[in-house]
Amino acid sequence: MRISELSARSGVSVPTLKYYLREGLLPPGRATGARSAEYGDDHLERVRLVRALVESGGLSIAGVRKVVAALDSPPPTRHELMGVAQYALARERNPAADPGWRKVAGALLDDLGWQVSEESPYRADLAAALEAAVAAGLEGGGRHLAAYAKAMHRVAQIDVRNLPPESPEAALRTVVLGNVLLDPVLAALRRLAQEDVSSRRG
Amino acid sequence: MRISELSARSGVSVPTLKYYLREGLLPPGRATGARSAEYGDDHLERVRLVRALVESGGLSIAGVRKVVAALDSPPPTRHELMGVAQYALARERNPAADPGWRKVAGALLDDLGWQVSEESPYRADLAAALEAAVAAGLEGGGRHLAAYAKAMHRVAQIDVRNLPPESPEAALRTVVLGNVLLDPVLAALRRLAQEDVSSRRG
Repeated sequence: MRISELSARSGVSVPTLKYYLREGLLPPGRATGARSAEYGDDHLERVRLVRALVESGGLSIAGVRKVVAALDSPPPTRHELMGVAQYALARERNPAADPGWRKVAGALLDDLGWQVSEESPYRADLAAALEAAVAAGLEGGGRHLAAYAKAMHRVAQIDVRNLPPESPEAALRTVVLGNVLLDPVLAALRRLAQEDVSSRRG
Repeated sequence: MRISELSARSGVSVPTLKYYLREGLLPPGRATGARSAEYGDDHLERVRLVRALVESGGLSIAGVRKVVAALDSPPPTRHELMGVAQYALARERNPAADPGWRKVAGALLDDLGWQVSEESPYRADLAAALEAAVAAGLEGGGRHLAAYAKAMHRVAQIDVRNLPPESPEAALRTVVLGNVLLDPVLAALRRLAQEDVSSRRG
């Protein structure tokens, strides 16, 4: 397809596509003339991924380049490739989470037997979120932390099962969109379910 | 206790306590002199609730007054009282959610057999969140929506079980803090669990 069709099918404007090409986020098409090139479905998949990373994931171009580089020289396992995108989405706001709360978070993961790298940015996210909850005066949450974790493990099982097997691009795009856009869906479902649970208790 | 001790124990400054008194959010203490009054543990509980509604819940004074009014003339069931706080926390950003997506959300709740009032603001939240996810290109989420809902129902069971039985003030405070402050905890747990699930698949 021509670049105009690539634009129409991906919803990304031609000038933005040319920007992606210049930045190396999108590989060049097959030259069909001095000023024209032909693009394939793999380009379309790549554009959709880049768009999701930029628009939904809020990544910088440097952040997108990191994910794209991992696609072009993939790590040994699909698990590691998905991890590149998942870690890139972390908001890097909790680099210096309180060491005490990091220990609490780490102990929880150990107790649960979860396999999570020490490098995961979400360890610090969990530590910071727990600290904020307790600082605001929430009691009892800690008592039930393992139960909450097990419920969220079921959510994660659906997330991972949900990844399309076809192409790594499509799977990475689902990692991005699923993490960014399903949190509000889950939050609404949680509150609707609270009403159901509560109504049955009276 | 004197107002200074109420301040020390609640973490709310004396001028702010006086403001709560003037606004009727906190009932007056027992007068012990022309310019002094004595406060009890019920005042402390009330202050903690008001603080949670204002600081964590982000409610306006009018919003707080609504919750406090429900406490002072409670509805017939505890379920309805908790609902007053839960609905007050809704951000009212989706009053006009797309009717098509509202139908999708409603059909899901019907299929699940959940008892949720037509008045719940979280119906519109769910509709808007689903619409945004699909607009951004997330596929497959819909297929698994019922599975996600069931996992979040388990979360809600922990939420409701977690409500302290002692006083309605303490229970309402937990509704507020639990809804506002546990979402980030759940989001971090979800991502940590994704890594665990994914690592076992390779």
